[in-house]
This record gives sequence, C-alpha cells and structure tokens, in this order.
Amino acid sequence: MGKVKGNLVVGQSGGPTVVINSSLSGVIQEAMAQSAVGEIYGMYRGIRGLLKEEFIDLRRQPAGVVEGLRHTPGAALGTVRYKLSEADYDRILDVLKKHNIRYLHYIGGNDSSDTSWQLARLAASSGYELHVVAVPKTVDNDLVHTDHCPGYPSAARFVAMATRDTGRDTEAMGPESPVKILEVMGRNTGWLTAAAALARQEEGDPPHLVYVPERPVSVEQLLQDVERCYREREYVVIAMSEGAQESAGKTLGEAFAPKEVDTFGHRMKGGVSDFVATLLSGKLGLKVRLDKPNYLQRSLMVCASAVDLEEAFRVGKEAVKQAVGGCAEGIVTLVRAPGPGYHCSLEVVSLAEVANKEKMLPVEFMNEAGNYPTAAFLDYARPLVGALAPPYVRLSRATA
Amino acid sequence: MGKVKGNLVVGQSGGPTVVINSSLSGVIQEAMAQSAVGEIYGMYRGIRGLLKEEFIDLRRQPAGVVEGLRHTPGAALGTVRYKLSEADYDRILDVLKKHNIRYLHYIGGNDSSDTSWQLARLAASSGYELHVVAVPKTVDNDLVHTDHCPGYPSAARFVAMATRDTGRDTEAMGPESPVKILEVMGRNTGWLTAAAALARQEEGDPPHLVYVPERPVSVEQLLQDVERCYREREYVVIAMSEGAQESAGKTLGEAFAPKEVDTFGHRMKGGVSDFVATLLSGKLGLKVRLDKPNYLQRSLMVCASAVDLEEAFRVGKEAVKQAVGGCAEGIVTLVRAPGPGYHCSLEVVSLAEVANKEKMLPVEFMNEAGNYPTAAFLDYARPLVGALAPPYVRLSRATA
Repeated sequence: MGKVKGNLVVGQSGGPTVVINSSLSGVIQEAMAQSAVGEIYGMYRGIRGLLKEEFIDLRRQPAGVVEGLRHTPGAALGTVRYKLSEADYDRILDVLKKHNIRYLHYIGGNDSSDTSWQLARLAASSGYELHVVAVPKTVDNDLVHTDHCPGYPSAARFVAMATRDTGRDTEAMGPESPVKILEVMGRNTGWLTAAAALARQEEGDPPHLVYVPERPVSVEQLLQDVERCYREREYVVIAMSEGAQESAGKTLGEAFAPKEVDTFGHRMKGGVSDFVATLLSGKLGLKVRLDKPNYLQRSLMVCASAVDLEEAFRVGKEAVKQAVGGCAEGIVTLVRAPGPGYHCSLEVVSLAEVANKEKMLPVEFMNEAGNYPTAAFLDYARPLVGALAPPYVRLSRATA
Repeated sequence: MGKVKGNLVVGQSGGPTVVINSSLSGVIQEAMAQSAVGEIYGMYRGIRGLLKEEFIDLRRQPAGVVEGLRHTPGAALGTVRYKLSEADYDRILDVLKKHNIRYLHYIGGNDSSDTSWQLARLAASSGYELHVVAVPKTVDNDLVHTDHCPGYPSAARFVAMATRDTGRDTEAMGPESPVKILEVMGRNTGWLTAAAALARQEEGDPPHLVYVPERPVSVEQLLQDVERCYREREYVVIAMSEGAQESAGKTLGEAFAPKEVDTFGHRMKGGVSDFVATLLSGKLGLKVRLDKPNYLQRSLMVCASAVDLEEAFRVGKEAVKQAVGGCAEGIVTLVRAPGPGYHCSLEVVSLAEVANKEKMLPVEFMNEAGNYPTAAFLDYARPLVGALAPPYVRLSRATA
C-alpha cells in the first residue's frame, strides 16, 4: 500500500499517567517529520472530541510546548471514559471524511484498544482508507502481547519509593503504631502492588506482606501473616491492592461493609485497607496507619521512571511510522530482548489480539503462600523501575 | 563557664521527617569534632531509651553510616511519644550521672521541647551540670521563635508537588470526576496545607481552594466556593487540612460522623475529606476523588527540599556547638535575614520560651475569605520549598 496523503488525529483516553504526554509528544514529533501527514489534530477529551469535532491544532503550538509535554503529567488533550457504540458510527465516518483524516492514534488501555478496534473495522467495512495504530498506556500493566505498558514503570516506581519511605517511617514509630498499610491501585490485577517489593534493600526490609487480587487471602490467613511478621520485628508494612480478595471474586471485607447510609442517602464507602485496619486493630490489638496516595500513583512526576519516559515517547513515534508505512490497524507493543541487560524493541500486533483482554500477574510472579512477589517478578520489574539510589543506611545497634 | 568534659546523648522524638536524620548526622559529626565530648550515645526510641539505658554507640558506626543518615528518611534511632513526668526524675538523674552525660540533645517538636525543658530544670535544681540544647523538628511548622522548623520545607515541597501533579490529573479527567480533595496533615495548624498554593504556576492553576484549621468555613460557604470554582473551569482542586473546621474548635463534619460501630465494636472513622466528598456529591452532584498520602508527606525522600536537608544538618551541629560552648539550656532557632535573597542564621532561645507553645498561621498569610493563602505566605514559603522545575506546559486550545 502506498503512502496516502491526509490528516492525522490523536487522542488520549482513560486514566492519565506521568508519561502519556510523552507518547503524545512522540506522535506529534513523528507526524511533523512525515511528508504524508498534513494537519495534526488532537481530539479534545478523547473520542468524544472526535464526535463533536473539537480538535486542537497540534502542528501550530507555541515554541517549546510539544517538547515540554515530555515532562508534564496528566493528559494534555484531556481524556474520557466513553464506550463507543454503533450509534456513533455514521457520525464518525462523516467527521473522518470531512477532515480527510487518514491516520488515527488513540493512546490508552484496554477499553481504548476496543475503541481503536471498532474504528479500524468501521473504516474497513466502509471502504474508507484509515490507518489506526494505537499507543499502549496503562498503569495497570494489563495489556496482553506487550512486555509491559508505558505508564506502569513510573507508577511502579512511585509504589516502590512510597513503600521504602513509609516503611522507614513505620520502623521509626515502632510498637506505638506498628502496622502500615499502603493501598495501591489495581482493582483486578496486582502488577502495581507487586512493585512494592522493589523497595526491599536488605532482608527484613519493608514490605513484609503483599496482597494482590490474583491471590485471594482469607481473613484467618491474613491475621496469621501479620501476627507472624509483627513477632519477628515489631512492625509490619503491607502493600495491598485496592482489589485484594478474600476468595475469588469477593473483595476483602465486602461482607463487613457498613450498611449505614449517610446524611445524603449515600452508602459510606470504606475500601479494603479500611476494613483490614479495623480487622487488625480489633483482632490483634495493633494500631494501624494507612497511606492512600490514590491518584498520586499515576501523576507524581518526580517519581517518573527514565526508561518509561523514553519508551513512551518512542512508542508514540513508532505508531505514526507504522501507520504512515501502511499498517492498516494495530497496537504498538514492547518486546523485551532475552538475556541480561535490558532492551525492548517495538512491534505491532492486531488490535483484535489485544482489545478487551486482560493480562493477570502470572502464577510464577507470586510465592506459594500468595503473599509476596518472587525473584522472577523482581527480575522483570527492576529494569523498568530503575535503581532507588542512593541506598539508605541503618545504625548499627551495637549497644554503647 | 568552662567546657565540661563528658559524654553526650541524643534522641529523636515524635513523628519522623525526611530530614530528622540529617539533624542527627549534624549532632554526631559536630560531637566527634569537639574534644570536650567523650562517648556519643543515641537514645533507642527517644527518652524511653534513656530511662531504660538503651543506648546506641554513635561514635563507632560502620563507615558511611553517619554521612548516609543525611539522605535516609525516618528516624534512625527510633522515636517515641512519651510524656515525661516527675515520677521519672530520679531514674533520669541516676542514668545521667552513671554515664557521666553532660550534653543532651533532643530532636523534636512541641512535646519534645517540653521534655527538654523538664530535663534542663531537673538538672539545674539538682546541681548536676547538664547542657540541654534541643534541635527543632516538625512538619507542622508550629514552633514559636523560629522562622520555620526543619522538616516543614520538605513536607511542604511534597504537598506542593502533589497538588501540582494531582491537579493535572484532575484537569485531564474534566467533568467526569471534576473535584479532587488532597487531605493534608495538620490537626491544629494550616502551615502545610497552605503550601499547596506553591503549585500554582499561572492564574487558574490548582489549587483552587485551600482550607486550614485557623479559618473555619461553614458548610454553606464551602458549597458556594466549590460551585463557583466549578463554574469557572469545570474542575476544582481542594487542599484541605485534616483539621479543617466549620466553626472554632469544631472539625468539619463532626456532627455528621457515622454513629455506627463496626464488627469489632470500633467507631468507623471518616475524616474531614470523606465528609466533604459526601457533601459535595450529595449537594452539588459532583463526583469527588480523594488523595490521602498521609505519612508519605513526611517521608517521601525524593521530595526533600535542598534547603531543608542542609539546614537540618546545620541546626544539629549548632546545638552541639552551643552546648559545648557553655549554653545551659535552649533550642536552636532559624532567623531569616531581611531583604531579598534567602538566608537564615542560627540562634538559641530558652526552652521556656518555646515549650508547649503553638504558632498558628498568621492572619496575613490567608486571604479575607479564608480560602486561599496570600502572596505574603508564598514569599515566606517559596525559598524554603524551592522551585518546582521544570515548568509544565499546556496545549494552546486554538481550534484546528
């Protein structure tokens, strides 16, 4: 297929990350370098911007803005959660034709891949030449056919740093408030929570327990785990997925959630870590403290992984190269080279292979007890997250 | 008074910070340089370590440890919350005499200053020569007679960075979940919450509202504030002290707290931001998201302020210099030089002037409406926190 001349549109979708704008910058910079590409449009707030013809002119931005995206968190185009339906198809085709859009790049995760896949099929079945190459992005790291997803390494770095540092805080407080729970994003998958284990510098360091949705833990087992850890060193740091389960499909504490409604008629929301905190203080008499950094996990720029920032940019550029090079539909994937030393090359797989699929943490990445990641996981994650330098010190307890 | 030869003991107290170990390193390094100082003891877990004669030998630490404390968060000696009483006095005098301790340094905030003050009076009234020079530390920044407290600039830097970055996240999500509340430490004072305003790079940037305990806000006013901000730009980022009040002495939402007890007989805890989230979604129909970084505010090393790290070290050294130089009792203070350019010199004031006093955010540091810090506050805080470089970019919305 020859290079079709036409305009390009790019959108961002789902939750922002610290590197989603790096991918956007990559798309724009590569698009400017390609003679086949005319105008470069940004969808304002995702696919809804396309439907409403709300475009941002990305070719004519003030000096420094496109490059500055590479260190700016959030989603500069605005994002959206919108499930495309067949009712939107006619409108979309009209807009694509009206603006002679031939290249479409959607930066996002699972749901966004489905949107891209629908758009590619729509164009193909209508005989309209459109090249749809998606750009992967999700802190959940749950896209299939890619070694990892841009956005994950930086969020994982936040989780590792937070665990290491709140761990030192907890150790310092000692028996007065010996249990810390760090609640980590991940309703269905434990990729991000597992990254807490990268905080461990030497044996006995936090985290001491790591619970992920893929490995349900009974209330009894949880109590035993915490009690054992507390006996060993008088403090316990737990990394817990917001979606941690007590049995398959049943979130921890679901059965205990308070039934009371508040003044406005809403059910009070608790969450897994609140339940576990109440459980531990009630059953073990231990004072528990919680950290719930929530959206900071995906936005705190100072924790960005250098590998992630660079890869997100490359992945954005690659999507444009592939589309202009003739690829009809696909999503860019990262393929890790075997052997020591870290390197990922870029490939493309069909959107059909990725849309609506979810990659869970593999069995071999968690220990038998289901309460700590394995060395295999650490080998996987460490090059993505990078070193947490400099190493911290501990005083020698040799008594005076 | 000549230099008495004797041993030195140092302890850490209250909540850890990212720089409390820098102060400890300063104490140790200065003590090693002073010929009047013999042994250098660390109290294991604060004053309780002194009572129990649990000392750590700080003069004979492995290579690199004392210097490494300067970039290690937490409290390396372990910390404690313990209110000294007269019942402890005899025991303390015995321990001081037994170990020939002549220099005592306690690193901490309000309560710790009171402990130091008690120790100084005890020694004086017993005719035992003891030099007690305290080292200030608190992220609350509420000690009197000092421009600011070591620990505050770094926690303030975390709050500013978190506000800036979660602000970009909220802006990207737009009308789908337009309100973000960042809950900030500070039960009685708003110093830390006010630092959120340092996130603002240009007009209209987050935060949009800042609520501190010193300036109560009625539920009606809060609703009006949020509605106005939402109308202006479709999203609202709020920095809220955990101790925000609706009238003097009455925490926001206190009256609405759920009365229900959980399975274990404990009252469910909500907190100010949970109440406000429920309020806003109920009354304004806006989806609210919360960030509760809690202990990460005082422990995330990557957010440390360079000024803070350096000052904490200097303050530790100064305490030893003063004690060895003959000062009987006091606490080191930071005194800011007037004029442009930032510089603080170190002085000492009597513990009697500082113990059990609390410095509130002055009236001129908040605007008339009580919902945003003034330029005067920003001028005060900016040199402590440092620049949040590099500046972020925003796409020009000129439509395509």
